[in-house]
Amino acid sequence: MSSSSAAPAAKPPMRDALVAAAFRLFSEHGYEQTTVDDIVALAGVGRRSFFRYFPAKEDVVFPDHERCLADMTAFLAAGGEECEPVRRVCDSARMVLHMYAENPAFSVQRYRLTRKVAGLRASELSVVWRYERAMAGYLRGRFTGHPDGTLRADVIAAAVVAAHNNALRSWLRSDGRGDAVAALDHALGYVQREFGRPQETAAGRTTVWPGSAPDGGDAPHPDDVLVLVTRRDAPLWRVVQELETATRRA
Amino acid sequence: MSSSSAAPAAKPPMRDALVAAAFRLFSEHGYEQTTVDDIVALAGVGRRSFFRYFPAKEDVVFPDHERCLADMTAFLAAGGEECEPVRRVCDSARMVLHMYAENPAFSVQRYRLTRKVAGLRASELSVVWRYERAMAGYLRGRFTGHPDGTLRADVIAAAVVAAHNNALRSWLRSDGRGDAVAALDHALGYVQREFGRPQETAAGRTTVWPGSAPDGGDAPHPDDVLVLVTRRDAPLWRVVQELETATRRA
Repeated sequence: MSSSSAAPAAKPPMRDALVAAAFRLFSEHGYEQTTVDDIVALAGVGRRSFFRYFPAKEDVVFPDHERCLADMTAFLAAGGEECEPVRRVCDSARMVLHMYAENPAFSVQRYRLTRKVAGLRASELSVVWRYERAMAGYLRGRFTGHPDGTLRADVIAAAVVAAHNNALRSWLRSDGRGDAVAALDHALGYVQREFGRPQETAAGRTTVWPGSAPDGGDAPHPDDVLVLVTRRDAPLWRVVQELETATRRA
Repeated sequence: MSSSSAAPAAKPPMRDALVAAAFRLFSEHGYEQTTVDDIVALAGVGRRSFFRYFPAKEDVVFPDHERCLADMTAFLAAGGEECEPVRRVCDSARMVLHMYAENPAFSVQRYRLTRKVAGLRASELSVVWRYERAMAGYLRGRFTGHPDGTLRADVIAAAVVAAHNNALRSWLRSDGRGDAVAALDHALGYVQREFGRPQETAAGRTTVWPGSAPDGGDAPHPDDVLVLVTRRDAPLWRVVQELETATRRA
């Protein structure tokens, strides 16, 4: 993923200093008890400097989400027709995890804070909702003209976000020790197996999972279940042929 | 669903009067410009009466969610081992829709209000999150000991909520004119087809959708796709036999 593996844009030191001062005060005195004046005093800057970077106190808690949301939106928009859409959305979720995983100590500290402060939890839900809408918007575009396109787009976006959050929370609860990327790959693998289908199935064509995903997708999953999807009008001999091939491969 | 089809519990008239007064003022003067004092003055009651029913001004906008959340939680808890868990969660989502659909004019009015006021939107996201956590909690319990039980629970709960919201929003955007229940049935049918599997598949057993869901599920969907799920160790003759039956029925 080019945008997340590229070196992060240099952040102004003053912005970093404000975030560090804020989190030190939040942990020492509590979030509610800390004012913007306290933060700027500790950081040694003026109030206006604070509001140049953050619209309000709560925004200092999520300093990188706006950038990440912009990166994700650009990444999705850059995905052409050749991209399998569910895979693209899963990759966009990897960008969000990358933001958390590049600074484990800060992410764990924030996780503990948002669990304690109801208002921050609400802010986080709003952020998550914006990620989900970005993914759903992309999928709606890709599914235009498909039956139930908007329904599928909304459900898949929600499933990807839930899988991401499941992996992220496990990692945060392990104090950032486990392998966040492996946990996310596993969680997204589940969603891709549920929803990541070939885009077009020609009449009479038969596709068997796992093992022959035409998008060059995941390696066969070591599962004991075989799933076969076929048009009803596919001739039975053709279905049996595919089935024989698939079970022989297994 | 017994709890949602039963007659709603009688609501205190004063509570209803406060909600009606609040929405009249919100639409005439805007949400932000309306104070609790304005609301109680129009309803002809004292401030203490307001706070007996609602912790804060924003809670008057969502007067029935607490009751609905309690009903849903009880409904889920009452579902025994014999219930197919995904179906149970879908039924619990029907309870939420019922709350909206029993008063279309009020629901549409509130929808317009929450779209305009960012703070209310955040409150609504918190409410939706609580519904989702209730569903996920139930599913986690049902999937205890299954591989990836918590992941599946979280993803399915999110998918059900997204399908519900997709149907609900379509209905609200139609000014409450369309058939909300039919829209929800359609949306949840998609989720059930994706995730609603037989709980246990004995080794060698083969199950074909649509048409032979062992939980006495949906009527066959008029789709042109046939899905077959089987253990890899099922004998091929048994798979072909099921396939023949299914394609003949189609």
